Amino acid sequence: MAMDRVVEYIDAHQDESVEQLLELLRIPSISAQPDRSGDVADAAAWVSQRLGEAGLTTEVLPTAGHPIVFADSGPRDDGPTVLVYGHYDVQPIGDPDKWVTPAFEPAVRDGAIFARGAADDKGQMFTHIRAAHAWHAVAGGLPVRVKFLIEGEEETGSPNVEPFVRAHRERLACDCVVISDTAKLDPETPAITYGTKGLVYKEVKVFGPAKDLHSGSFGGSVANPATILTGLVAALKDEHDRILLPGFYDDVKAITDTERDAMGGSGFDEAAFIEQLGAPCAFGEAGYTVLERRWTRPTLDVNGLYGGYMGEGAATVIPASAGVKLSMRLVLDQDPERISRAFDDFLRARCPDTVRMEIETHGSAGAYVAPLDSEAMRAASRALASGFGREPARVREGGTLPILPLFKRELGAESVMMGFCRSDCNLHSPNEFFHLSDFHAGTRSAAHFLGNMSNHSR
Amino acid sequence: MAMDRVVEYIDAHQDESVEQLLELLRIPSISAQPDRSGDVADAAAWVSQRLGEAGLTTEVLPTAGHPIVFADSGPRDDGPTVLVYGHYDVQPIGDPDKWVTPAFEPAVRDGAIFARGAADDKGQMFTHIRAAHAWHAVAGGLPVRVKFLIEGEEETGSPNVEPFVRAHRERLACDCVVISDTAKLDPETPAITYGTKGLVYKEVKVFGPAKDLHSGSFGGSVANPATILTGLVAALKDEHDRILLPGFYDDVKAITDTERDAMGGSGFDEAAFIEQLGAPCAFGEAGYTVLERRWTRPTLDVNGLYGGYMGEGAATVIPASAGVKLSMRLVLDQDPERISRAFDDFLRARCPDTVRMEIETHGSAGAYVAPLDSEAMRAASRALASGFGREPARVREGGTLPILPLFKRELGAESVMMGFCRSDCNLHSPNEFFHLSDFHAGTRSAAHFLGNMSNHSR
Repeated sequence: MAMDRVVEYIDAHQDESVEQLLELLRIPSISAQPDRSGDVADAAAWVSQRLGEAGLTTEVLPTAGHPIVFADSGPRDDGPTVLVYGHYDVQPIGDPDKWVTPAFEPAVRDGAIFARGAADDKGQMFTHIRAAHAWHAVAGGLPVRVKFLIEGEEETGSPNVEPFVRAHRERLACDCVVISDTAKLDPETPAITYGTKGLVYKEVKVFGPAKDLHSGSFGGSVANPATILTGLVAALKDEHDRILLPGFYDDVKAITDTERDAMGGSGFDEAAFIEQLGAPCAFGEAGYTVLERRWTRPTLDVNGLYGGYMGEGAATVIPASAGVKLSMRLVLDQDPERISRAFDDFLRARCPDTVRMEIETHGSAGAYVAPLDSEAMRAASRALASGFGREPARVREGGTLPILPLFKRELGAESVMMGFCRSDCNLHSPNEFFHLSDFHAGTRSAAHFLGNMSNHSR
Repeated sequence: MAMDRVVEYIDAHQDESVEQLLELLRIPSISAQPDRSGDVADAAAWVSQRLGEAGLTTEVLPTAGHPIVFADSGPRDDGPTVLVYGHYDVQPIGDPDKWVTPAFEPAVRDGAIFARGAADDKGQMFTHIRAAHAWHAVAGGLPVRVKFLIEGEEETGSPNVEPFVRAHRERLACDCVVISDTAKLDPETPAITYGTKGLVYKEVKVFGPAKDLHSGSFGGSVANPATILTGLVAALKDEHDRILLPGFYDDVKAITDTERDAMGGSGFDEAAFIEQLGAPCAFGEAGYTVLERRWTRPTLDVNGLYGGYMGEGAATVIPASAGVKLSMRLVLDQDPERISRAFDDFLRARCPDTVRMEIETHGSAGAYVAPLDSEAMRAASRALASGFGREPARVREGGTLPILPLFKRELGAESVMMGFCRSDCNLHSPNEFFHLSDFHAGTRSAAHFLGNMSNHSR
């Protein structure tokens, strides 16, 4: 049977898969940093080449930002069409000194590949390319029609995907979308994520004097933009971690007792989880467990803070400006546009006229919850069970995939998220990793998924 | 008369003075930055060499930090002993892109030298060395005994001067201290500063999770250290800019009507001053004018703010830590130790146990007000009138010279501060400058001061 031979092929070519992934991980495709745009383009070209080698017709399509790689195995008479979505861009690396081995010099140790993007999303995305490659090598083609949309701006909020999808609705037409950009439940258990949060990402800059001033000579003369900024940020939440933007919770559905019971019974070990994060204790909106907050409650977090003298030691300046980057994670039915306006209005009403304020929106996307009873969902469950040898868990996730509500709206397609990596894989942190065993099991699962989709259609 | 010939010598050797100052300004002696310690040592050696050329016995003495340059013209039977204090270290340069010409490549334009340290304090300090040099060249020696104490840690709060002065009380013995590290009143009028503020400089770091976390996956799990930090900073002041530390104002004397009238009648143009700073409007403690706040009221300013992702664009992290650098400027009778404790206690009581907090003190010093009727004050007034051709103003200053209360306590000596540079000379900011005409007039004034001190003693 073709499926068995495809899996044999995948297992026999593990070294080749790993070598190729290491190549991709060496490209520092940080989408947030303008001086990396050449590297981002290199990563796109690399992905396109691998898709071509898997027998697909591929294109690297320009956008107003970084390019999108599109590939298509071509029309056929039978069966559904699967769209694989992923991204080849990565997060910035943060403090390079915190990496055991350099972020863009992937190193294999303790059975895992350490590199920025190892899991998010280069490694996980690449499983689907290797699965297609195996089908192509063994069976001369894919068991269903498969399209790939691999973008390069996911880590900056996917600003150009929406116009792209709108402009290419027919080309992207599909019956379901499959994505691997989420995590397993625990080291042994793969997971299908059926819900993600929305995102509104803001940067607020406060400007005071025309230049940094000596805080001794000029203290008491003008408002300090950094002081004003701390007051604005502090006003966003109360001490019980409730977000104070007017109307913020208006469209948030209360958790039902059934959901609450399901999450309570999920076996999630809150104490062990917090200990693993290294924080003194759990903290969040009063009245909810950690899992309830992560899966079903909107949140607001400061992501970055800057202003004045940030070097070692002391410098006595009144900063000319100060800024904060912060983001809100939204749940189903919260409208990102409305939340965005509420945020701006709240700060504008509070910012004193002793300073000047600018607000920039870096990203805005809605939440998504997938139906649990679809063909694709069943095909994914069986594929993960085959690939990992263990039934997958069904989970929700606090992260954001802006593409999900977009695909639903523009293509009428629901998405299935198969998670292969560990939940503690240092996503967005130093020393990001992806276990080799998970990479290979993920590749097998991706191959099974295509096979299962083909069987479903018969 | 010797005095006339000294002034002639100074004016005839202006080019040599400028060339030498440019040499000193090329040394990037930033005391706050550990990787600049070699440069700081170079600046000390350079200063020592120039003092030797002025006929003084000089030494570069080590401290626990950067070295102190000490020089002495030697004992004599008559006249008072003058101690010249200054510093050869400089502030960090901030954003290099904001400098029209590089901070450590001094450039002369529009009649001024542009470089970090041009005014604060290399340029102003060097006037006294050139004045001594001129006396030495013309008269074969100085008219009174002169000692120099030129330190290299003033910009980091002079942490090692106090033990140095205590250990060398007899060596430093003097009748008065003269310092040029303050500004003129306006472009035409030199100034004697008779009061400075104290300083308590703190750095507060808040620690949360062991590493930066994905704000989507982990939002709602743990407290965000940057959010907590903004709340702590915002709690330090009310909306009228009153500092909320318990007991903070206990030892602050009310301004008398006489003082208020004097400051009101000083001709200070508040609107022009604020316009020059480029801020939307004046702001500070309610109930006081800008000049009252700057000269007589304690202040608190955030000097730096940092945490999480500070690069371009967006990154969705919960930062592992965040920090703030901030300083309080104190007035006479406020005890820096007591204020320091009040600050720490206030934050410790407010910091939730969801995070860990560290408080570091970078500097602590008292305020100082000099007597207006001393011999040295009269000698300085006449010297400035001679050097600049205009009677000096008497002003107070919001900056801190930690050395002043120290000299009074340990050496029993009062200080006189002669200000040569412009008040808008971009002290601690990009494009710091010192007018050549002020440099030369300052050098003449420094020479006159020594001559006047000699006459006083006869």
